[in-house]
Amino acid sequence: MSLLFLFSCCPPEVVTFPQNVEQVSEIAILCNDNEIPLIPFGSGTGLEGGINAVKGGVCVDLTHMNEILSVNPEDFDCTVQSGVTRMQLNNYLRDTGLWFPIDPGADASLCGMCSTSASGTNAVRYGTMRENVLNLEVVLADGRVINTAGKGRRTKKTSAGYNLTNLFVGSEGTLGIITKASLKLFGIPEATVSAVCHFPDVQGAVDTTVQVLQCGIPIARIEFLDEVSIDAVNKYSKMDMKVAPSLFLEFTGTPSSLDEQAALVADLCSMNNGSDFKWAKDPEERSHLWKARHDILYACMALKPGSKPYSTDVCVPVSKLPEIIKRSKEEITKAGVCDSFMLGHVGDGNFHTLFLADPNNPEEVQIVKDVSNKIAEMSLEMNGTCTGEHGIGQGKRELLVQEIGETGIQVMKQIKQTLDPKGIMNPAKVFY
Amino acid sequence: MSLLFLFSCCPPEVVTFPQNVEQVSEIAILCNDNEIPLIPFGSGTGLEGGINAVKGGVCVDLTHMNEILSVNPEDFDCTVQSGVTRMQLNNYLRDTGLWFPIDPGADASLCGMCSTSASGTNAVRYGTMRENVLNLEVVLADGRVINTAGKGRRTKKTSAGYNLTNLFVGSEGTLGIITKASLKLFGIPEATVSAVCHFPDVQGAVDTTVQVLQCGIPIARIEFLDEVSIDAVNKYSKMDMKVAPSLFLEFTGTPSSLDEQAALVADLCSMNNGSDFKWAKDPEERSHLWKARHDILYACMALKPGSKPYSTDVCVPVSKLPEIIKRSKEEITKAGVCDSFMLGHVGDGNFHTLFLADPNNPEEVQIVKDVSNKIAEMSLEMNGTCTGEHGIGQGKRELLVQEIGETGIQVMKQIKQTLDPKGIMNPAKVFY
Ligand SMILES: Cc1cc2nc3c(=O)[nH]c(=O)nc-3n(C[C@H](O)[C@H](O)[C@H](O)COP(=O)(O)OP(=O)(O)OC[C@H]3O[C@@H](n4cnc5c(N)ncnc54)[C@H](O)[C@@H]3O)c2cc1C
Ligand SMILES: Cc1cc2nc3c(=O)[nH]c(=O)nc-3n(C[C@H](O)[C@H](O)[C@H](O)COP(=O)(O)OP(=O)(O)OC[C@H]3O[C@@H](n4cnc5c(N)ncnc54)[C@H](O)[C@@H]3O)c2cc1C
Repeated sequence: MSLLFLFSCCPPEVVTFPQNVEQVSEIAILCNDNEIPLIPFGSGTGLEGGINAVKGGVCVDLTHMNEILSVNPEDFDCTVQSGVTRMQLNNYLRDTGLWFPIDPGADASLCGMCSTSASGTNAVRYGTMRENVLNLEVVLADGRVINTAGKGRRTKKTSAGYNLTNLFVGSEGTLGIITKASLKLFGIPEATVSAVCHFPDVQGAVDTTVQVLQCGIPIARIEFLDEVSIDAVNKYSKMDMKVAPSLFLEFTGTPSSLDEQAALVADLCSMNNGSDFKWAKDPEERSHLWKARHDILYACMALKPGSKPYSTDVCVPVSKLPEIIKRSKEEITKAGVCDSFMLGHVGDGNFHTLFLADPNNPEEVQIVKDVSNKIAEMSLEMNGTCTGEHGIGQGKRELLVQEIGETGIQVMKQIKQTLDPKGIMNPAKVFY
Repeated sequence: MSLLFLFSCCPPEVVTFPQNVEQVSEIAILCNDNEIPLIPFGSGTGLEGGINAVKGGVCVDLTHMNEILSVNPEDFDCTVQSGVTRMQLNNYLRDTGLWFPIDPGADASLCGMCSTSASGTNAVRYGTMRENVLNLEVVLADGRVINTAGKGRRTKKTSAGYNLTNLFVGSEGTLGIITKASLKLFGIPEATVSAVCHFPDVQGAVDTTVQVLQCGIPIARIEFLDEVSIDAVNKYSKMDMKVAPSLFLEFTGTPSSLDEQAALVADLCSMNNGSDFKWAKDPEERSHLWKARHDILYACMALKPGSKPYSTDVCVPVSKLPEIIKRSKEEITKAGVCDSFMLGHVGDGNFHTLFLADPNNPEEVQIVKDVSNKIAEMSLEMNGTCTGEHGIGQGKRELLVQEIGETGIQVMKQIKQTLDPKGIMNPAKVFY
């Protein structure tokens, strides 16, 4: 079940497929009365073992609750049930000129994305789930149903009471089951172009990123891929890019603002010894390029059949990116890991190191664990976080304590304790 | 003390002026041990009676903790102590090319702005405090000190544990005392112009707003003022604008994108029978215009010496703006209120009705209370909120229950109870 090798598979004892919020509530009451763990399942694309039933219990598979309940084009918002996926919503919106831009690559459920506080390639422009959820319907451990901003509310801003919406966003199923989400929508930009630019070294690509941000250029996407990632993409997606550290860029806006932006960024690239832009102007080319980027996990896995991947997810203030990437590469070399790929949403200071290992080789697994931890600890030293977008899940609970500090963790646990006193909601995730 | 007439003044028994977080923590421990109310004071510009010591107790005046602790221009962030005000920060930043755009008009403390989840005229472009706080240092009721995102962390995004930052943003001093905030900064736009446009009726101005948003024009500010507000502004700020429902607009960006935006908006205005733009292009003119907008509370008060103001603060989905403004005007006329002014951050669906009344005339006060409540209830009917940016404070506690629902309020109270079991933090605010 689990895509990643770090978490051994723990299937639940029962899988339920509720059809509506009342059924979810009934399941919660039953489990709570009997102190049985409850594990919400969105679409299973999470990367930190979040859906593993480490203490057994009942999986609440939300895929059947997949209705798009309302779209208000004039207000730029919509409301969906928990099983609706990102692509399902965007297909549905096709004729409205609107879209939901948060894009973790995988076709995740939107409420799963709420749960992990997901982001992805568009966050540099549109923010993460934290900034794009207006309201949530949540079933609590004891079966109570709340609407975090009040039933039916969907205003762009509010100062009414505690921000429960953002308490549940990022709570990874440990505080309640999200059964409905009201989300912001955006107009599809008038014009879009993408481009790829190659650099002689990592430093050039990362320096360019930092400079683009510092110039305040409203770039839509800026993604880094190292040379091994490019090689994997070439092979898997049948492309012939130069095997070198590269940036995948996207510009959106009105045609003239787009030319302005692209010219500025092209200048910065060439100042850092980048190649000329290789443009992807028409929709097919662009979607081929971004599909290739999003398929990178599978592209890497294809290089080492039988292996499984693990991805780090550190995020640092952007000025620290050059240093942490350099030092991470050094650590990886020192540890003697063979198969590692670096890529990232560098516009947010977020990057991933993808490792491939044979799950049956405990030594290899241990080395990857150790290097991943080391990279996360370097991030913490640099005012960073151990997870920019994947969440804590099972694997980063110890790092979370280092990151937040004992007292902050106490406060989080007090909140958990008061909303889920019997500890049935996705136990052994986020905290020990 | 209180600017507004709805809340009778309740001074605290003691005012403390802590110099550092350790002293704040000591005060909290003393108060908690002795079950004495603690009322945080930022700069006293709040509009919902938040600093009133309704149950007596100790005011923690944070104005002495006014150090700007760090500015990281390359990362677009800064960290300030609780007493630092918005203007102090922006003056300090002047030579960096950066600014903190959230602007409630008043020179509020930045941590006070965190506490009320403030926004103001720039929110349509930059969001509210919810979207712009990276980390908070908070002293809890029992004196424990936490950093909501972990000490020193200042990444653009994170998925690490519960979002405590946004639990304290908007908590109005009822969960803890914010002693430090790390905030996002933005580059000052390359070019800026402002303009005023007058309309024959309210509908034209509001329809234009809705259309500007629907066209996805990245406008920086779009503020509505009705004819009586314009009249007050003319008199107070020595201007000679046409006395008619008006929009104050601001465009920012590169010079060419700015021309593009302005042309589009001018078209929409004239389609709705708006006048030609009256431009404010140079910095002095622009700042005169916006100062006039921000001084409106005082402009209105000057029209009726001896009166005190009260402001509603509803926010609805933008498509509902025309209807709620129309119906609010009807209610006001029906109630026979003489002195009322309508203005608002219409780009967010947020607008204020400002009432003037003689605080010693109980009948007048009661009428204003009733109409304000009626307007808030209409907003709730239209998927809106009773407060877009001012907070609940003392006056909207009953409305909060209507807005969130009993179960949601229970959850908020559970959180309050677990973090402040003795109920010492700003009692009788937000909840009964
Ligand atoms: C190829 C690939 C690329 C990816 N790239 C990115 C990326 O760029 N950015 C990014 O942020 N993520 C990325 N991810 C990770 C993943 O897509 C996100 O974590 C996503 O948010 C998970 O959503 P899901 O519906 O699959 O949740 P699941 O995997 O089903 O669950 C994830 C966690 O949320 C909980 N949960 C799920 N649904 C609910 C609910 N309705 N209520 C309460 N709790 C719930 C689960 O219990 C679990 O703890 C990637 C994954 C893959 C496979
Ligand atoms: C003329 C005028 C125009 C205004 N326009 C706007 C506007 O456009 N948009 C808008 O959002 N607001 C507006 N306001 C309201 C006001 O400026 C905001 O509410 C502001 O956020 C209050 O900040 P403050 O520092 O003055 O807080 P205070 O008034 O001192 O306190 C407000 C509340 O927050 C709590 N608090 C203050 N500091 C802290 C702290 N450090 N830790 C914990 N709790 C604390 C207090 O206990 C109180 O409950 C306006 C006010 C005036 C007078």
